Amino acid sequence: MSRHPIRFKTKPKIIACASAVGGLEAKGPLKPYFDLISDDSRFGMDTWEKAESEMLRSCTECGIKKANLGYDDIDLAFSGDLINQCTASTFGLMDKQIPHIGLYGACSTFVLGMSLAALSIESGLANTALAAACSHFCSAERQYRYPLEYGCQRTPTAQTTVTGAGCAILSRMGVNKIFVDEFLPGIIRDLGICDANNMGAAMAPACCDTLVRYFSSSGTSPSDFDLIATGDLGYEGHRIFSELCDNAGYDVSKNSIDCGMMIYDCDKQEVSAGGSGCGCSATVFSSIIFHRLQNATYRDVLLIGTGALLNPSTILQKESIPGIAHLVRIRRES
Amino acid sequence: MSRHPIRFKTKPKIIACASAVGGLEAKGPLKPYFDLISDDSRFGMDTWEKAESEMLRSCTECGIKKANLGYDDIDLAFSGDLINQCTASTFGLMDKQIPHIGLYGACSTFVLGMSLAALSIESGLANTALAAACSHFCSAERQYRYPLEYGCQRTPTAQTTVTGAGCAILSRMGVNKIFVDEFLPGIIRDLGICDANNMGAAMAPACCDTLVRYFSSSGTSPSDFDLIATGDLGYEGHRIFSELCDNAGYDVSKNSIDCGMMIYDCDKQEVSAGGSGCGCSATVFSSIIFHRLQNATYRDVLLIGTGALLNPSTILQKESIPGIAHLVRIRRES
Repeated sequence: MSRHPIRFKTKPKIIACASAVGGLEAKGPLKPYFDLISDDSRFGMDTWEKAESEMLRSCTECGIKKANLGYDDIDLAFSGDLINQCTASTFGLMDKQIPHIGLYGACSTFVLGMSLAALSIESGLANTALAAACSHFCSAERQYRYPLEYGCQRTPTAQTTVTGAGCAILSRMGVNKIFVDEFLPGIIRDLGICDANNMGAAMAPACCDTLVRYFSSSGTSPSDFDLIATGDLGYEGHRIFSELCDNAGYDVSKNSIDCGMMIYDCDKQEVSAGGSGCGCSATVFSSIIFHRLQNATYRDVLLIGTGALLNPSTILQKESIPGIAHLVRIRRES
Repeated sequence: MSRHPIRFKTKPKIIACASAVGGLEAKGPLKPYFDLISDDSRFGMDTWEKAESEMLRSCTECGIKKANLGYDDIDLAFSGDLINQCTASTFGLMDKQIPHIGLYGACSTFVLGMSLAALSIESGLANTALAAACSHFCSAERQYRYPLEYGCQRTPTAQTTVTGAGCAILSRMGVNKIFVDEFLPGIIRDLGICDANNMGAAMAPACCDTLVRYFSSSGTSPSDFDLIATGDLGYEGHRIFSELCDNAGYDVSKNSIDCGMMIYDCDKQEVSAGGSGCGCSATVFSSIIFHRLQNATYRDVLLIGTGALLNPSTILQKESIPGIAHLVRIRRES
């Protein structure tokens, strides 16, 4: 059995990241770090679904440009989103003639994409690979919950789906010092949470499980890292996650934060338990976290993408909500 | 740029395959090759969605047993299906405590899973990995089209979603002579087909594109292979695919067939243009094709998984149907 984290010998470099967000996200504290902002929730399109694809398209275009590359230089793209059959991201990338692999990991998709992009470089399949993920409040809300016009109220533990797309470009070559060091895939955990308005609680056990497996496998502990970023548990889920880690003997209170807690100003913005959606950890990593790796504020970061593996039918059929969490360690060569 | 097929140095072996199907599939010509057959479309569950998960669960259990392994021996599982947010396969595997990566590639999912399982072995992440995919006529029909009770008629070009699950277990070790030799990821192709009842036509261009790129990259031609199996274009799509290949200078008429043409007896069974769904190529490969590799009838097979990247909303919003096709070359050491 080999269920240890893989340490990438090729040290796949993250040569560029980009983010595109909507108006609500741009009113939050991370505004200065986002590349593209649209106050129009339709991003110039005639439906929210097309808007989500356009957001991803413009985000990847921006990322590829920042990497001084063209679409032809990308050997492989990994993408995913929350829309049924992942059409938001596939439609966003479909005209670009890039070999494409579709992923589904709910809010863990961006981390999964980066991990598999690194794996594709490690194995020799690709020299340069792109990972991208997106979500849109309006397309998600009407697909998972209620028509927006209904104006449904959120419960305090519910999270707000981020309108955002993030992408990372990984390469075997390049001069950037930031690289994907390790990857540990998650195991599905299900503790019987059935409340679709408390997905943080549903994902927290999987998040703790992956992190504890990582610590135990690698012989590391929380203090070895500048940042342990989860995404997206929100306030409620992160509180439970911290408690579970504490019970397992790991104090993550000093350097752990959730991307869903970072993207909004939760005192001033009405976002209940914080942000969620594939676009949340994707935009938070691609903006402030990557920025701080570049300016050496951070040198060693664990990013744990968490996903709630539900759909509206599983909830109606009274199934519980299994969670999953994938971990990547991202480092900066000094 | 590196958009060539990857040839796996580790020669990941396919140490076992398994298949589970419903009653209609068991009435077809491949009945003797299937491992598990259920005449009850609910597989003992109370909903078709749960039935689909149970089918996948029992299929993977059977495959792992055939490989003389336990769940603990599987380092990583790749799975996917057609149900919104891929819950059919995740719920089927969720209790098994296997690290899990969710994929979405529509009907190409099984091939994608085998390819990434091979990649995970090649990179050193896993020693043994599982790839699984499933679809269920009843859960797919009511999600994509109409309630079953409505009794909607199919057009002649429409395909029948296979009720079936297939899995393959790949390993770095083992004595089996069958291995995954090469993988070429697909590029999304969209020629403007908008008819959701003719997905074969929507996928045929992507299938031809991948195969022609493979031939041109590897310096091979159709006659180098014992079998070129596509899945799932159906009769209509395969006819178009063959014509497109012919136009590109490759005659695939002698040794190419589509999994959707193999699974049913189309003269006697009312299945319109043949089979489709993630479970089609998954069960056809896991049954007869793998059997014929084992008994050395085939020694060199190209399997091209094709997917139509639509959802019901994209059709309602008048989008066209992009297609994708991923290729694996599977060989037998003589």
